[in-house]
Amino acid sequence: MTDVDTAATSAARAFEATRSASDAARAGWLTAIADRLDAAADELVAIADEETGLGETRLRGEVARTTGQLRMFAAVVTEGSYLEATIDHAVPDATPPRPDLRRMLRPTGPVAVFSASNFPFAFSVAGGDTASALAVGCPVIVKAHPGHPRLSRRTADLVTEALAAAGAPAGAFALVDGFEAGLELVDHPAITAVAFTGSLGGGRALHDRAAARPAPIPFFGELGSINPVVVTAEADAARGAELAAGFAGSFQLGAGQFCTKPGVVFLPEGSALEAALAPLVGADTPRMLTPSIADGFQSGSERVESVPGVSLVAGSTGGPAVAVTDVATLRAHADELLAEVFGPFALLVRYASRAELADALDELEGSLTATLHAAPDEPVDDLLPRLEAIAGRVLFAGWPTGVAVTWSQHHGGPWPATTSQHTSVGATAVRRFLRPIVYQDAPDAVLPPALRDANPLRIPRRIDGVLSPAG
Amino acid sequence: MTDVDTAATSAARAFEATRSASDAARAGWLTAIADRLDAAADELVAIADEETGLGETRLRGEVARTTGQLRMFAAVVTEGSYLEATIDHAVPDATPPRPDLRRMLRPTGPVAVFSASNFPFAFSVAGGDTASALAVGCPVIVKAHPGHPRLSRRTADLVTEALAAAGAPAGAFALVDGFEAGLELVDHPAITAVAFTGSLGGGRALHDRAAARPAPIPFFGELGSINPVVVTAEADAARGAELAAGFAGSFQLGAGQFCTKPGVVFLPEGSALEAALAPLVGADTPRMLTPSIADGFQSGSERVESVPGVSLVAGSTGGPAVAVTDVATLRAHADELLAEVFGPFALLVRYASRAELADALDELEGSLTATLHAAPDEPVDDLLPRLEAIAGRVLFAGWPTGVAVTWSQHHGGPWPATTSQHTSVGATAVRRFLRPIVYQDAPDAVLPPALRDANPLRIPRRIDGVLSPAG
Repeated sequence: MTDVDTAATSAARAFEATRSASDAARAGWLTAIADRLDAAADELVAIADEETGLGETRLRGEVARTTGQLRMFAAVVTEGSYLEATIDHAVPDATPPRPDLRRMLRPTGPVAVFSASNFPFAFSVAGGDTASALAVGCPVIVKAHPGHPRLSRRTADLVTEALAAAGAPAGAFALVDGFEAGLELVDHPAITAVAFTGSLGGGRALHDRAAARPAPIPFFGELGSINPVVVTAEADAARGAELAAGFAGSFQLGAGQFCTKPGVVFLPEGSALEAALAPLVGADTPRMLTPSIADGFQSGSERVESVPGVSLVAGSTGGPAVAVTDVATLRAHADELLAEVFGPFALLVRYASRAELADALDELEGSLTATLHAAPDEPVDDLLPRLEAIAGRVLFAGWPTGVAVTWSQHHGGPWPATTSQHTSVGATAVRRFLRPIVYQDAPDAVLPPALRDANPLRIPRRIDGVLSPAG
Repeated sequence: MTDVDTAATSAARAFEATRSASDAARAGWLTAIADRLDAAADELVAIADEETGLGETRLRGEVARTTGQLRMFAAVVTEGSYLEATIDHAVPDATPPRPDLRRMLRPTGPVAVFSASNFPFAFSVAGGDTASALAVGCPVIVKAHPGHPRLSRRTADLVTEALAAAGAPAGAFALVDGFEAGLELVDHPAITAVAFTGSLGGGRALHDRAAARPAPIPFFGELGSINPVVVTAEADAARGAELAAGFAGSFQLGAGQFCTKPGVVFLPEGSALEAALAPLVGADTPRMLTPSIADGFQSGSERVESVPGVSLVAGSTGGPAVAVTDVATLRAHADELLAEVFGPFALLVRYASRAELADALDELEGSLTATLHAAPDEPVDDLLPRLEAIAGRVLFAGWPTGVAVTWSQHHGGPWPATTSQHTSVGATAVRRFLRPIVYQDAPDAVLPPALRDANPLRIPRRIDGVLSPAG
């Protein structure tokens, strides 16, 4: 562990090298980290299981996802579109004459990453925030999550070794620890952006702190999400039991500790889904990630269950459970019923008619995801715009807990799901740590390679308004 | 004028139509506005000249720039790259299986635009913020600038008429007036983003207010910029007199009331530029845009001139003026000397050596632009990274006051130049008012046209990681 000022000062110094390192060089850094983590997977998974109880199968899968993610960002920066290289040649006879203008994205500078409890690899020390920042040339300082301190330290050591071996500058990566260190990090003048995955309360406090700095910096937070699911009467009639199985698996996955856990399900009165649910909900209270998450789960479930008009339909108080209510109760108690309960708990909301369903969706705040189960060819014009209005990912089949790491993935949504228009998963996660620079009438020799006439990197560019793929 | 709640509620209702209008339809709205403003140019320029004193030539050029800008955004949305359409087909045999994912950018919702005093057309009611928001389907509510109230109202009437005639929904555009209305607008739950061009003080207050909302929204502010210029000894020796003429023209243009006015010039001791300057600076105090801008110009110039070690080298106190100092004084009084003076005032900073120059650049905060005048083939490795670190546009010839509206333009920079990584000028200005949505396993028929298999809009898309230009 390093103290914050030392880490931030070293990161600022390292930035002089990381910002001018080639995309190929930075891709090499990420690949080196991925290789080292893969090689140490047995050791890492063992530590992680002790600290989180998430189980070996899940944790092995998460290591693979994490190293796959590092390699994906290596591919993204090598492909080069992310630079948004754009060249407008001079038009001397325009009124007024136009200069030669060449735009590209450049890294912002050192980034603070607050790691999450629930994905000790994929959203932690070497997770997507770290990978996407390093990929584009931003040094990273991770604030370790107290839920897995030994794993954080061991992962950080491996990252540091891999970076050094791959030729990255000292200071390009550091780990800090503790609540106060987190605050110092957000305040430090060398930090240019904050990436955060965690609770609404903690995230809001850090968001406000980042905005209140003498020089405010962007806070890219993923905070809270209830991930509504809508089941139409037709879908329920056609495959209610199948949907029940999918839902039960999804909301209990990882002890319900997923940002994309389906927390609220709208279904018709007398639904087959609801009828099939009871035997699918676990009897035992699972181990939660941390004592405070366990407390939050207890108090959150109790808050929902104590609302008049809410009853349990499956599971038991204090353990995995599904409660049920109606639209009128949801409207009357939206604050209590629509706040995220982190853990294996979900709320069913029975609607009496399609019109009541559509209106009820207007009660919802922003979420990472919204899922619509309808029959094939069933018109959904009354529902889809409402789901698009509140979510960053709209699913038409399946369940939201899986988040594929791809070019098109978006993991974000209107407040309180995230605090920005950006994603923390998928290729475009790099955007958070980039800002444009345009060079006016620059000699070819001083331009970054991405903007030189000869296109030495052979990357896609837009030239005089026309997009041309890699040369 | 409309009251804020009425305007915001109407905008939210209009959004249901504007978000699903085709790009071609919205391009038609912008073109209709441009045509109507061009047709009314005589009348508009006359009102503007009465209210701002900027002169007919400048104002006619600004109308043309403004209508050209509206037409450029029409072209940008028609071209379709701005949607970032990205399709990843399903990979059922991956571990875990990958769903079909299709991402595109969608409008965020109603936008509040705070217009600027200094460009009564290009950064006002029908300026770049309004054009870029409407282009992508966001209703706009403009807070009128009190510096040109009649022009604001007349422009708003023309915009409203043009939109109605072109088939845009009622509520897609409104104008509100007054300080309190501006605050209400930032606070209104229907508003999803704020665009602002103005002073550091006012912008900071609104930034903080947007961040403190129950549901925070992005504040895209352009606040203050000193636009440093660096003249190397070689460049000064080769063309000092020519540079003096360029500089004198640039800092006095529009009575110095440009966001990109060159406010600080670093030049060698005994420079030819400095020697040539006195006759090029106007004797008369120009009419300023508003009484408060005139007051700010007076107090700002006096603040700089009163620093020990600063003297006037051209012009006169209270009128157009250039002061001069040295690097040691700049360091000792950075707060007083490096705050923007809005108006025809600039500060020369004499450096004794190249090393002193390079170090002095580390004193600078963020600016919209940084300009480097060097000799051809002169190495600038010691200077360029420092200018890139603080600016959004780096110029190698010319002067920063001209801001071409093109695909590659970037008008933004590190704090306090702007509050975000986005631009308010150029094609990518639309990004501010967009957020991604990804559709998972959606039936082709319910997808937006941009994401359907057949690519009916024939727009550039990325498919399974490969960028393909328009079909």
